[in-house]
Amino acid sequence: MKPAPSPLAYVPFVSVDNMMRLVNSTGVEPFLKGLAACIEEDFKRWPEFGKTPRVASHSRDGVIELMPTADAEHYGFKYVNGHPKNMKEGYQTVTAFGVLSSVANGYPILLSEMTVLTALRTAATSALVGRYLAPRGADCMAMIGNGAQCEFQALAFRVLCGINKLRLYDIDPAATAKAAANLEAQGFEVVRCSDGHSAVEGAQIVTTCTADKQYATILTDNMVGAGIHINAIGGDCPGKTELHRDILLRSDIFVEYPEQTRIEGEIQQLDEDHPVIELWQVMRGEVPGRRDAKQITLFDSVGFATEDFSALRYVHGLIKDSDYFQKLDLLADPDDPRDLFGMLMRAG
Amino acid sequence: MKPAPSPLAYVPFVSVDNMMRLVNSTGVEPFLKGLAACIEEDFKRWPEFGKTPRVASHSRDGVIELMPTADAEHYGFKYVNGHPKNMKEGYQTVTAFGVLSSVANGYPILLSEMTVLTALRTAATSALVGRYLAPRGADCMAMIGNGAQCEFQALAFRVLCGINKLRLYDIDPAATAKAAANLEAQGFEVVRCSDGHSAVEGAQIVTTCTADKQYATILTDNMVGAGIHINAIGGDCPGKTELHRDILLRSDIFVEYPEQTRIEGEIQQLDEDHPVIELWQVMRGEVPGRRDAKQITLFDSVGFATEDFSALRYVHGLIKDSDYFQKLDLLADPDDPRDLFGMLMRAG
Repeated sequence: MKPAPSPLAYVPFVSVDNMMRLVNSTGVEPFLKGLAACIEEDFKRWPEFGKTPRVASHSRDGVIELMPTADAEHYGFKYVNGHPKNMKEGYQTVTAFGVLSSVANGYPILLSEMTVLTALRTAATSALVGRYLAPRGADCMAMIGNGAQCEFQALAFRVLCGINKLRLYDIDPAATAKAAANLEAQGFEVVRCSDGHSAVEGAQIVTTCTADKQYATILTDNMVGAGIHINAIGGDCPGKTELHRDILLRSDIFVEYPEQTRIEGEIQQLDEDHPVIELWQVMRGEVPGRRDAKQITLFDSVGFATEDFSALRYVHGLIKDSDYFQKLDLLADPDDPRDLFGMLMRAG
Repeated sequence: MKPAPSPLAYVPFVSVDNMMRLVNSTGVEPFLKGLAACIEEDFKRWPEFGKTPRVASHSRDGVIELMPTADAEHYGFKYVNGHPKNMKEGYQTVTAFGVLSSVANGYPILLSEMTVLTALRTAATSALVGRYLAPRGADCMAMIGNGAQCEFQALAFRVLCGINKLRLYDIDPAATAKAAANLEAQGFEVVRCSDGHSAVEGAQIVTTCTADKQYATILTDNMVGAGIHINAIGGDCPGKTELHRDILLRSDIFVEYPEQTRIEGEIQQLDEDHPVIELWQVMRGEVPGRRDAKQITLFDSVGFATEDFSALRYVHGLIKDSDYFQKLDLLADPDDPRDLFGMLMRAG
């Protein structure tokens, strides 16, 4: 008789559909707030993590990356691709999934979609950083690049930083129209702008989030006044930047993991030893964030493995006692661990 | 209204149960033969692959590894853990799963269990290598270490090299009893041996496959006579070896990927520049395998990413037009790739 798989064989799996149910049942803004708290908690215990720059496999049209990290209890990794040409063919530019495992025995304890979750964790990280760096009383954010990440950023900045006015610009007016409609439905005061210069007018925070895989100049030096916080999301791989180099030279630059950001971030334009500030030290209170009202602060975001780890850990906690997952028969678990062959034969 | 996920959102998933159904419906030996053919095909086009030593995360009780590789068309990686203490607690020492993706757009095209599949690919690789290195007319194999890998090795050596006599030894007689019963049921002529010395008597091939995570000496120098082929499976991570160093000095040593084997294999006992022969060159006919009847050949097996890639490619081919997989809702696929947020809202 064929025995049923043991409970050890099953790994909880959060599909895209279940992730959307989980996020909607929690509420997008409460979800972002809880996620940001997890990310902050993990940044504050930064030295506990094993860290490595992501493992990238580059090809002509894109890149596939693995982003692993671990603390003493959990191991996590994300698979993520980046293929700028995908959109034209009806595919997503970025798709992702991830796994959280027990360090003690190596067994996966969660497999999750991470396309939606990455959009959420990227936004949560940006807004969390914004809370440390944005000028006091900021209520207006310029958003240059109105693609898939735009709305998530806006909601995260509202729930974490109190932003309710948005100034949108994208080279493709259809992208701005999409984002504006979505964000007005969420109660934002939205201004559609015809170019980057008008978008930044009156904004205390500037988010750049464009997708072109090239050295671009989304922000020129004269667009950036004193006291601004720049949340630079789009420059995130070698050969892809968004800011003019002169802006970088006038800014205090905050990064996730310098070893990775120097390869992938805006600072690939600078000398290798250009000073940067590590966010975990700011969050632990060891290094100041924003010091004065005139300072230009720049979050050179590239996305780091610990943020995905935090996101997986957050989802793993949320799905307990819920039905937002399926049990996946991913692991072979014979009665006698040495009798894998016998298990195969008995299944026949 | 909530739209159904598009076909692009689904990734075929082969569970443990479906893998066992697939293997049993194909037949274990035909499956091993087809798998070995795929592995050989990929070794023969070795320069086409992007290669890197595996990315390991070590902890007190074990290791979790990611093993990526890619050719121009496909990207593959395996997640695998190794936790020697697991068995005592009723868990598998090694569990694994893997993903095959399209390089062109980065989308996964297969998620598969790989605990069973890794056992099969390790055995198929050993026997494939045996076909190039074992002495002519070999019909008897000694197997020291009769754990989960043992029966798979035996079947692969039968279908690929004509081995039908087995001499089994394990420090735990229960392991030998388990393997002997399984293998006699498969029609092998099995001799249960009381120590390693008696196991190797009369055998032309010696397979060592023990699991202790330490420097062990499963084979001493005087146990290895002229003309033997040694298939050394168990020495596969830093600090874990099975053969006495003197055996290595008398052998011609064949390896998968020298950069990884020098860290993980038996040859971690030797100087960094000790000469080794790369299997892909043997399979392409560029370098001879076995040259004469007295030569001692040693396959210092550690398992390389391309073998897992070949295994995933093989399974991907087999499941087409079958029902040995489920469709997994792993990828977010909004109608408008830029409107991920809109997809989330419409799901609510």
